[in-house]
Order: sequence, then C-alpha cells, then structure tokens
Amino acid sequence: MRVAILGVGTVGNEVANILIENEKLITARAGVKIEPVIGVVRDLSKKRSAKIPLSDDINSVINRDDIDVFVELMGGVEKPYEIVSEILKRKKAVVTANKALLAYHRYELENLAGSTPFGYEASVAGGIPIIKALREGLSANKIEKIIGILNGTSNYILTNMMQKNENFEDALKKAQELGYAEADPTFDIGGFDAAHKLLILASIAYGAQGRPEDILIKGIDRISKEDIYFAHEFEYVIKLLAIAKRIDESRVELRVHPALIPQNAMLSKVGGAMNGVSVFGDCMSESMFYGPGAGGRATASAVISDLIDIARGNKSPILGYKKELENDFVISPMSEIRTKYYLRIRVKDEKGVLAKITNILSENNLSIDSFLQKPKQKTEECVTLFFTTHTSLEADVKRAMGELDAQEFIIQRPFMIRIEE
Amino acid sequence: MRVAILGVGTVGNEVANILIENEKLITARAGVKIEPVIGVVRDLSKKRSAKIPLSDDINSVINRDDIDVFVELMGGVEKPYEIVSEILKRKKAVVTANKALLAYHRYELENLAGSTPFGYEASVAGGIPIIKALREGLSANKIEKIIGILNGTSNYILTNMMQKNENFEDALKKAQELGYAEADPTFDIGGFDAAHKLLILASIAYGAQGRPEDILIKGIDRISKEDIYFAHEFEYVIKLLAIAKRIDESRVELRVHPALIPQNAMLSKVGGAMNGVSVFGDCMSESMFYGPGAGGRATASAVISDLIDIARGNKSPILGYKKELENDFVISPMSEIRTKYYLRIRVKDEKGVLAKITNILSENNLSIDSFLQKPKQKTEECVTLFFTTHTSLEADVKRAMGELDAQEFIIQRPFMIRIEE
Repeated sequence: MRVAILGVGTVGNEVANILIENEKLITARAGVKIEPVIGVVRDLSKKRSAKIPLSDDINSVINRDDIDVFVELMGGVEKPYEIVSEILKRKKAVVTANKALLAYHRYELENLAGSTPFGYEASVAGGIPIIKALREGLSANKIEKIIGILNGTSNYILTNMMQKNENFEDALKKAQELGYAEADPTFDIGGFDAAHKLLILASIAYGAQGRPEDILIKGIDRISKEDIYFAHEFEYVIKLLAIAKRIDESRVELRVHPALIPQNAMLSKVGGAMNGVSVFGDCMSESMFYGPGAGGRATASAVISDLIDIARGNKSPILGYKKELENDFVISPMSEIRTKYYLRIRVKDEKGVLAKITNILSENNLSIDSFLQKPKQKTEECVTLFFTTHTSLEADVKRAMGELDAQEFIIQRPFMIRIEE
Repeated sequence: MRVAILGVGTVGNEVANILIENEKLITARAGVKIEPVIGVVRDLSKKRSAKIPLSDDINSVINRDDIDVFVELMGGVEKPYEIVSEILKRKKAVVTANKALLAYHRYELENLAGSTPFGYEASVAGGIPIIKALREGLSANKIEKIIGILNGTSNYILTNMMQKNENFEDALKKAQELGYAEADPTFDIGGFDAAHKLLILASIAYGAQGRPEDILIKGIDRISKEDIYFAHEFEYVIKLLAIAKRIDESRVELRVHPALIPQNAMLSKVGGAMNGVSVFGDCMSESMFYGPGAGGRATASAVISDLIDIARGNKSPILGYKKELENDFVISPMSEIRTKYYLRIRVKDEKGVLAKITNILSENNLSIDSFLQKPKQKTEECVTLFFTTHTSLEADVKRAMGELDAQEFIIQRPFMIRIEE
C-alpha cells in the first residue's frame, strides 16, 4: 500500500519514521507493507527527518495513479477541503488529522467519500482511539453523555494553577515557554480546539450536525486564583470540558467551557497536558479513555492505525451510521442548558449587600446550594462571595448575572463556572 | 442478520433485550437489523426476561441454516470448544464472551475460523473496548507493556481493605453478600480470571502463545492489614495486576499478582469493582482504559459491538495479525522477572535479628531501598519489619525468602509483594 503524506511537519515526519521503524510489525498486522512513497511540502529547502522523497507540487502528487492512500496533514480548512475533495472524487482513500476540516465539512466529506475509505482517528486525542471506541466499540449503546478533556494546553495550564497556585497569566507564560502553548494561544485556551473535537464525537454518537459557531464555547482565561481557592475548599477541580449530553430522543446539548468537577471523579485525575474522555452509555454505564492528545508520535500512531484499518479492508461507516437515524438529533439552544452553577461575586463590604444579592438570585429562580465568604484581608475594602446553585436554567443565571453586574456594590463583573457532577 | 444465543443467562438475556430495545439505533449503525431469533438453554422451565423463542436442543440449533451468527455464552472450556468448532466448520460467524475458552483454545479457533468472523470483545472487560483498541486503535505501536486491573471482585475487595481498613476475610465476606464474589471465590481472588484475560491481550499485542499453566499467577488472599498499613505510609496502593511486558524482541513476561503501585498512577484510581487497563506503546506512550469489567449489560454491550462489526463487514484479523511475526514472542521464565519487591517479615524482637536479615538479603544480591519497622504494641513480643528492594531478580528474592523462613527468629512465613512503578 503506497502512501503520500501531504504536509511533512511534526506529525508527517513521525508517520514516515514509524512506518519505516515498525515496518515488520505493521506489515504483520496490516497484511501488506505500508510504504510512505512521497511527502508534499511547501518549502523543499527545510531539513526533515523523514527518509522519503519530497515534492512541492501537490497537484501532480494528488493525481498520481500509483498512490493508494493520501494522508492530509496540511492544516487549515478550505484549502485541505478542496484537496481532499479532489482526492475522494478520484476514489482514493484519505486519512486526515485535521479537526478543523472535520468540524466544518465532515458531512460533505462523508457524502463525497461514499464507500472510499476516509479515516480521521487522529483528529481527536491522538493517543486515545476514541473515534474507533465510539463508532465501533460502544456501538450497541445509546450514548447518554460524553465528557472530554480534549485540549492539552488548557489542561496543562489549569493543572499548574491548581497544583502550584499560579495565576492564569503565569501558567500560560510557562506553557508557552515549554512549547505547550502557541504564541497566540486563543485557539486552545478559548475552547475552539476542544469544540472542533466535540463536534466530531457528537456526529458519531448522535448524528448531530452543526459547526463551531452553533455551540457554546467558553475559554479558561477568566479563571482566577479565587476560583481555585473555592475549588480546593469544596473538593472540586476545574477542567476545560467538552460536553455532549442527550436531552431526549431528538435533542443534544453541545458545549465547551471550564467546569467544576468532583475531585474523586476519574476525569479529575487527568492532569498536565493529557487528554481524557468519559463516555456514558445505556448498556456499559461509564467507560473512560486517557492518553496524550497531541504530539507528533501519538498523532502519527492514530494516522497509522487508520492506514492499517484501510489495508485490512475494514468498513465502518465514516460517521458511525450506515443508515440514517429516524430522528436526527438537533443541538439544543444554549439558553436551555440546565446544570448547577458556581458564582464568584466581588462586592463592596457594606451592610445589606448579601440580602440584595440573594434577592436577585431568588427572583431569577436560582436557589442556593452552598455559600462561602472568603476571609477578608485587613487592608481590603471589598469581599468575594462564592455561591453554588441547585440545578438551574442557563437563561436564568445569565439574567441574574446581568442584574448583579448593574448593582453599584459590584466591584468586578460577576463570574460563573458551570458545575458538572 | 439472524442471531442465535447459546446460553441465556444474565448476559444472554441482556443481549436479546438490548437488541430489541435499541433496535432502531443498532440498525442505523449496523446497516441491517440484527435479530435474536432463538436462545438455547438447558432448562426450559426457568423464567427468563428475553423475549425470544427458546430451545434446549443445541445440536438442532447449530445446524439451522437460517442463523447467521451464533453467540456463545455457555461457559466452560471443552464443551463450548466443541460447539464453536462445529459452527466454524460450517463457516458460520461466532461471537463469544468466554475467556476460558480463549485462554486455552484461541489459536486453534483462529485457525478453524480462517476468514469466518469470530468476535470475542466481551471476553475481556466488557465495558471497555480493549480488544479493539489493542488490535486496531493502537496497531501502529510496538507494545511495551500492558498493565491491567482485570478482575472486579479482587479490586472490590482490595479497595475495601484500603479504604475501610477491613481485613481480607471480612472484605471477601462482604463481597460475597453483595454478589461481587462467588461462593467459591478462588477463580477471581486467586488471579485465574485475570490470567485468562491477560493471555488474550498478550496474543493481540505480542502473538504470545501460552496457557494459564505457563504463567505466574498469584492471588490476593495473603494480603494483610499490615501490607495496607505499609502501602498507606509509603504512598502506594495494592492492586491485583495482570502484566504483559516486552523484555526484548522475542521475549515477553506474563504475570498476575498483587502489586504495590504509586498512589498517583492513573490505575490506582480504578476503585471498587471497576476494571482499568494501561497500555504503553512506542508511539502513543500511555493510553489508559477504564470501565466496568463485568455485569450483564456491559458484557452484552461488547457482544453486540462484535455483532455490529460483523454486519458492517469489518475484517480485522482475529488475533491481530494477518501475517506471522518474524519473531514469535515466547513467555519468559518466572524466575527471570526483574522488578522491585516489598517484603513483610514478622520476627521475634531480639538483638541481632535485623543484622541477620540484612545479611541474608545482601548475600542474595538484594539491596534495600527502604525499611520500616512498625511501632510495637507493649504486649507484643514480636515486630513486623518491612523492606523494599531495588530492582532485583525474582529467583534471588525467592531464595532469600526461603532462607529467611528457615531462621528460628521468624514468626510467620515471610511475605512478598512485587512493586510496579
């Protein structure tokens, strides 16, 4: 089986290296030799470790008849969509690690591919075979819920904030110095990377259509030391979660946001730059998957597993369904989310403030589950109040926070974190 | 696709129930309706929840031409081997949850099956798709090591011993009362159940042949409160582990025994009756899988995922390899195991005893990594000494323990637990 690698960066290099290093093993498992025969790069002058011929002419490569599978590792959305579409029209198999491509075009690509193999295990949590698990391993189950820690950068930052009492800015800086975060970290810490991955998983579990713009996405940049303090006191940890939750037979909630989860939950142990995904189903209850989400070799591991599947002739339906579901799941509106909430409210230390706040909460149908007032430093003139609510409606919380923000005793825009139990 | 269920107990009932409950979803995923058409039981008079016709004539059922797949849930080894062989000879697909059958006959069955589908995902940790993960998801990797908590009964007992300071006998009794342990618990607490599962995983990872008799199997029945005390003090937990570890290009260590593992390892969080498996590979580093290992619905979930795979026409090689490996892995002798060890030695509280012990350890090439003497109660005339060693050879430890046991100052047969870090 002859493979072209479109994009020979960190992952592409490792795909070629591992196919060569582990050739005997992979041949025994796949039944045929899987040979990387050409890599496509933009800049031929750059040195690369992969021992394969290189070309900078992508059009001539994708038209070669002697290639069986094209591995797309270019990045971006529209350009790879165009290239991959061209390849699929020629009935040639494709393997991609490109989550953004799938977040925007997975259904078009599924259509185009038809019975041509199209693999994308590497697009979500490279070191964890979660796409295969959802599409095949857990296929008997009505999926109740998927909760994932799908962005290593954010998890690395949050872990440091919790374990080393660092504030967000310092933890981010450190992550950047160590190469865990990009110079512009927005895509990771803003929740967008996790949202792309969530949309992919939600297609397999629910046949849910939708693009990143259609779902709730919140980042971790407003998490403060005070939130960490509260989490410690109440035995929570704070994680950036990607959540897909079945509401009923036709609606699913999709959301990415920081969340408080109990310290004793398995997911709370997923530390540093690691990823973890818990899947809840009506047959197997909970199944949790843990591993590296990024890195050249882990991602290459997933790419090659797709190549081996193609060599073996595996025929799982691309997005998990061979026939259409009777009910297509639609994404439930963000305002209809129901969960528990944590509120951090910084106020002037004045008489009557607590009464005013509890009034506003109560008028907005929010009932208080716990309350903490952090001991005040002598020099301070304000105090921070922490509340958690019983299960409430997102729309009610939003309205209450708006009303609170308009009060003269409020020092800082009130902040909310959803609680996931 | 028409399915016969051979053995309609807890799992068989659930297979039929879920196929009926989730029919629409499963049909959409599989592409065809998967219909349970007949169940085979020994005793027709017993009430069962499965809404399918029953028969007590297995021979007539396995010869029916209108059945596409036979699900073997009979239990035992030689009888199901005979039945499954008959079915495979007729080129009919088989799905089984029978780990003992596979521990003894997996290579014969692979041979017999040829290109006829033969699924056994349910034979190891029902709620965790670990067979698919190893065979397909992680197929690019040279597997360095598999460490599994594969027996829920033992894990439930050990978790209670650690969290509630119960002794082994009380924890076992409680597990029996709650239905987590059988009246005769030997198969679970003796490590045999875990060993069967380990052999299955080791075939997929290493092509390792071997039967339960060929590997090291130790149970948890000699774990004492003192061992738990030491584990707490030194930040370990005690788990019954099933370990497959590649030594070099042709040898693999297979062993099942209680082990001390660091409190902060992901596997140490696998509590109660849950299962967990960590897989280490040369590409993806560590990937960990967690979920229920037993129970009717979790096991049925795995059985049905195999049925869906068969309906989809998936063609992964049964034991993970399409061609033979150049080097077949052989199981390395038990005496050549190298790891760290914990020793519990109960002795008379006399002058010179510690010197004698350390002499014996040193003469047997064991060097001490840590030492703890538990504070003695006033009324006691003996003390318990705890040692951990640096990495040592199993044969040396065994010899040292034999020599220690022969000393007149020894009160109780010395006890050893391997340490896995």
